[in-house]
Amino acid sequence: MKGFFLIGMIIVSKHNPTVKELASLKEKKGRRLSGTYLVEGEKMVRECAASGQQIKRVIVREDYAGEGYPYETVTLGCDAFAAVCDVKTPQSVAAEVALPRVPIVPAKEPCILLDGVSDPSNVGAVIRTAVAAGYRSLYCIDCADPYSPKSVRSSMSGIFFARIMQGSREEVLRALGDLPVIAADMNGENVFSFSPPERFALAIGNEGNGLSAAVRDCAAYTVRIPMGEHTESLNAAVSAGILMYFLKNKSV
Amino acid sequence: MKGFFLIGMIIVSKHNPTVKELASLKEKKGRRLSGTYLVEGEKMVRECAASGQQIKRVIVREDYAGEGYPYETVTLGCDAFAAVCDVKTPQSVAAEVALPRVPIVPAKEPCILLDGVSDPSNVGAVIRTAVAAGYRSLYCIDCADPYSPKSVRSSMSGIFFARIMQGSREEVLRALGDLPVIAADMNGENVFSFSPPERFALAIGNEGNGLSAAVRDCAAYTVRIPMGEHTESLNAAVSAGILMYFLKNKSV
Repeated sequence: MKGFFLIGMIIVSKHNPTVKELASLKEKKGRRLSGTYLVEGEKMVRECAASGQQIKRVIVREDYAGEGYPYETVTLGCDAFAAVCDVKTPQSVAAEVALPRVPIVPAKEPCILLDGVSDPSNVGAVIRTAVAAGYRSLYCIDCADPYSPKSVRSSMSGIFFARIMQGSREEVLRALGDLPVIAADMNGENVFSFSPPERFALAIGNEGNGLSAAVRDCAAYTVRIPMGEHTESLNAAVSAGILMYFLKNKSV
Repeated sequence: MKGFFLIGMIIVSKHNPTVKELASLKEKKGRRLSGTYLVEGEKMVRECAASGQQIKRVIVREDYAGEGYPYETVTLGCDAFAAVCDVKTPQSVAAEVALPRVPIVPAKEPCILLDGVSDPSNVGAVIRTAVAAGYRSLYCIDCADPYSPKSVRSSMSGIFFARIMQGSREEVLRALGDLPVIAADMNGENVFSFSPPERFALAIGNEGNGLSAAVRDCAAYTVRIPMGEHTESLNAAVSAGILMYFLKNKSV
């Protein structure tokens, strides 16, 4: 029996407790219970490690032939690995990473306020663009969980570099204090003729319903992206991207 | 037997030939064979009808209680309707619409060239933004089919108003003639200090590999969106949106 628990043991059953625990990270409840989230794919795991995120363990499929990591490593059979991953055709490596504990504090630089953005791919794409455009602080109210597999994937490695503060509307608005909120809303002024203040929080609302009344009411400015006659709205991540770059480019 | 073929007959079987034919529109082969594509959901069908697209027939689920349309209408049972639709929880109406026949001709105004964009949601989101930003002509080379269910959905109603020209690289580049191509590429000059010409084709490449060598080689200008140190790229639809609005805003 001695060799049975060798390092390098392969877990093949989908019903193994470790596999079940890892698979539960697809759901918010599982992530909350374990205090971790899952990062999938070679490139993402490498960037996660390089970014200094706290990796709890690395999960590899039995055929994994990539680089080794200085973390506890769990080897899974093909079926078990597929059960853990969210993507349909997973790469052969993933990592379980500690959810960062980020206190909700005031932002010193231009920042993003996501208010009810419900599509995880949009949340992730906004995080990706925000990091690219130099908005490191994001406040999330009532949004799809930024640490869901879809959002993590769509953020590319943005999720590792953004400071994501999730809280209630009250907590977030209190932290913003007197920072001017620029609300994105189709009834606002044309953003291309707007001069932004030096510091601001850009507020992006729900895909269908826009911003909540509470956020709209506290906005110092309201801006819109002008649109042709046949269009009512843009994709939330696309409009966030246009506004982020334009406002930064004008204010810098 | 007389009442059997009443108008108002409900098709319940997923194996019914009409249902199979409609379900085949999810795939490019089915769309090519029938020369039609599927538009799903109340709002999309309404806007499709209003836009003057050629609707072949309207498909309603047996519990549909919305407005009537002056087109041949097919009523399906719940299972059959679900089999036809691409979304998991479909609304109760859809339309089969003729694929527009769009000859590949030179564009007179600023236009978009999609070169190998492979994610149908990105193709749709670019179409949505292009119509909003006033780029009516889009050339597609080697892209995900703009008329796939995902792309149609993500275009919102943009697909009804855009002039989408799909062709080979040679056909498209020939049609563009001497129109200056602005290539989006991370090795280009900063777009925010770039002065675009009055007329141009903005070229957006594949999500992973960027533009093809042929398109890169014929570019008159190459521009990039500046990005922070931790970001290699933006989502294709997001970067297309930023470039479209910025270039138009500068040139107008």
